[in-house]
Amino acid sequence: MDSVSYARRFDNVTGSAIREIFKVLGRPGMISFAGGNPSLDALPDKLCADLARDVLLADGKRILQYGATEGYPPFLESLTAYLKEHFGFSMEEDGVLPTTGSTSGMDLLLKALVNPGDAVLVESPTFLGNMQTMHLYEANLIPIESDEGGVKLDALEEAARRYHPRLFYVIPTFQNPSGRTLAADRRKPIAEMAAKYGFIVAEDDPYRDLRYRGESLPPIKSYDTTGNVVYLGSFSKLVSPGLRVGYLLAAQGLLRKCTIGKQGTDLHTPNLNQAIIDQFLRRDLLDRHIQSIIPGYREKLELMLGELASFPEGTRYTAPEGGLFIFVEMPGGFDATALFSEAVERGVAYVPGTHFYPDGGHHNTLRLNFSNSTPQQIHEGMGKLRELFAAHLG
Amino acid sequence: MDSVSYARRFDNVTGSAIREIFKVLGRPGMISFAGGNPSLDALPDKLCADLARDVLLADGKRILQYGATEGYPPFLESLTAYLKEHFGFSMEEDGVLPTTGSTSGMDLLLKALVNPGDAVLVESPTFLGNMQTMHLYEANLIPIESDEGGVKLDALEEAARRYHPRLFYVIPTFQNPSGRTLAADRRKPIAEMAAKYGFIVAEDDPYRDLRYRGESLPPIKSYDTTGNVVYLGSFSKLVSPGLRVGYLLAAQGLLRKCTIGKQGTDLHTPNLNQAIIDQFLRRDLLDRHIQSIIPGYREKLELMLGELASFPEGTRYTAPEGGLFIFVEMPGGFDATALFSEAVERGVAYVPGTHFYPDGGHHNTLRLNFSNSTPQQIHEGMGKLRELFAAHLG
Repeated sequence: MDSVSYARRFDNVTGSAIREIFKVLGRPGMISFAGGNPSLDALPDKLCADLARDVLLADGKRILQYGATEGYPPFLESLTAYLKEHFGFSMEEDGVLPTTGSTSGMDLLLKALVNPGDAVLVESPTFLGNMQTMHLYEANLIPIESDEGGVKLDALEEAARRYHPRLFYVIPTFQNPSGRTLAADRRKPIAEMAAKYGFIVAEDDPYRDLRYRGESLPPIKSYDTTGNVVYLGSFSKLVSPGLRVGYLLAAQGLLRKCTIGKQGTDLHTPNLNQAIIDQFLRRDLLDRHIQSIIPGYREKLELMLGELASFPEGTRYTAPEGGLFIFVEMPGGFDATALFSEAVERGVAYVPGTHFYPDGGHHNTLRLNFSNSTPQQIHEGMGKLRELFAAHLG
Repeated sequence: MDSVSYARRFDNVTGSAIREIFKVLGRPGMISFAGGNPSLDALPDKLCADLARDVLLADGKRILQYGATEGYPPFLESLTAYLKEHFGFSMEEDGVLPTTGSTSGMDLLLKALVNPGDAVLVESPTFLGNMQTMHLYEANLIPIESDEGGVKLDALEEAARRYHPRLFYVIPTFQNPSGRTLAADRRKPIAEMAAKYGFIVAEDDPYRDLRYRGESLPPIKSYDTTGNVVYLGSFSKLVSPGLRVGYLLAAQGLLRKCTIGKQGTDLHTPNLNQAIIDQFLRRDLLDRHIQSIIPGYREKLELMLGELASFPEGTRYTAPEGGLFIFVEMPGGFDATALFSEAVERGVAYVPGTHFYPDGGHHNTLRLNFSNSTPQQIHEGMGKLRELFAAHLG
């Protein structure tokens, strides 16, 4: 059946580059700074084993039966309380919808809002996985320039005026891939701009609570008075990505469209997974768990930054206050894309930065993840990269 | 934000009628023949509690970490073995992709194949949930007439010739809503027609193993020599719908497109849920569980058929050999849609048959589910319906 023709939405989609890169990571002894995986140490397997058993013994019939698209009721209750307490969201005009990971929240938002050809503004660089999701809706991705403080407001406003976008996709905290945090004084203006120009801000904030120093900033959503900001949350980096539990906080009308879209996409997020996260919220296990994993992540970040300090002259890199990633910019002419295979041969992997730019290029950049390696692996792998990069530059 | 405009794909979608109907079912004392829920008795809560704990203790780090879009490796292994043994699929040209329930398999298939306006052939009547999924892809649904033996081959071929469809969606066993099974001699011709006219058959077969009498028939997929048939399987009716585990068996090229689509939709089906179903296959618990629930379902089906025998003259209904539904056709002029509220007031609910017809009408029909009521509720609820219908006809 070579004659089969696929839908047009696949014309510009060939599979996530990062997931193809993942395939080499299984080789024995490979040190991987690619991916965005939590540390295995940080995954609460024994606790989840007990919680899964507890919830199935206590409420198993409801958990195993069909659930409501709107969510498993106890989780909706604890999640709403958590969003009020932890973020200060009023939850009056807005509602929350549990999603099968944050990817599915993004999928539903695009489903609700985007027709083929519609402009979607994205930071440049930005998370490549969600760029693929956008391409599957045939969105017209418009890159918005960023600096140390995140997206540049003048560039954002010019694009809003020029392209009449449906959406602006932004990762405000410890951004993927840059590790940067959107400056405090750029947050309210983004909410105001969305209202003025009539676009929706998709605020994707999965790294927020992985903060190793400094103070939290209010989400863009906290400045939203018009329902133009949607907050995408996730428990993937805090508890477990394999459980696939995220949520979408949005104005009721838009949330209703996403809910209808979800009826036709996966009917509902599995109840068991919602029930396990519900226990983390209800028994006050979440904050305790986060506090237990932060010291290890902080140590790894500092170790990797320390290693970068002795990289060849001209190496620039971000110094995040949290999250999972450091973004590295090598001198012009350096080609991190071409060097990738050579790095893999030496037993160390990263993601070439070009994949995070909607319009490609930027071959002198790369993304490094520190959470999923041991301190020893960070020392050894960064040593290999340093040597390789120095040879390439020399 | 009343000014927000939604994507065109929502123009003809207002939410699944069946899920709106569900909202009245929570009333105390309501007897529900609506829905398609398994019996609560049939949901293995204690067993799942043990299995969830076991798999998290044995392989918790891998289960809680990001998984491959392609599936949790142990489940892929046991599922492939199961598909070979249980169905006789060769698994040589084809591959299998775990999905977040069968709904998500349908979503991915439409994503891979259907552009707005493309013709999709469906049985008339057919499952309303998947019609909504098709509407979200702006498919042009073409109803194909059915009789006691399922879809009529001459009508199917005429539509294939006339509409150049991308897909034909068919539920071959104990169909939803009709309860009918596609005749043995119509199966191979459908696979051949798909090859001849270049469309894909989406064979949705979730009820197959809920057979209370008679012999299983080979799936349409077993006659597929060209890769034009996709088999959609599900553990929702056999183990638990709340776990959301299904699968999609398709030719490698098409499966690859669905996998890329899934990267952008939910990244992967939660590992824990795949791992639980894996244990059902691996420990040979599935067949034993199915054998334990069949006698209760058989009794309920026979009880409901017995009640229907004393319904007013002119009442016609299907006599399924398995599954969850009976479809009832009242004499012309009878209006099951209009009577729904009155039935609900008397404490009994069904789904008006009109919702299962792509082009509406057929107000004299209704769908009855027997699995999710007790024998006593079936007796009492059917008595109320008999009385109401008789009064309406008299």
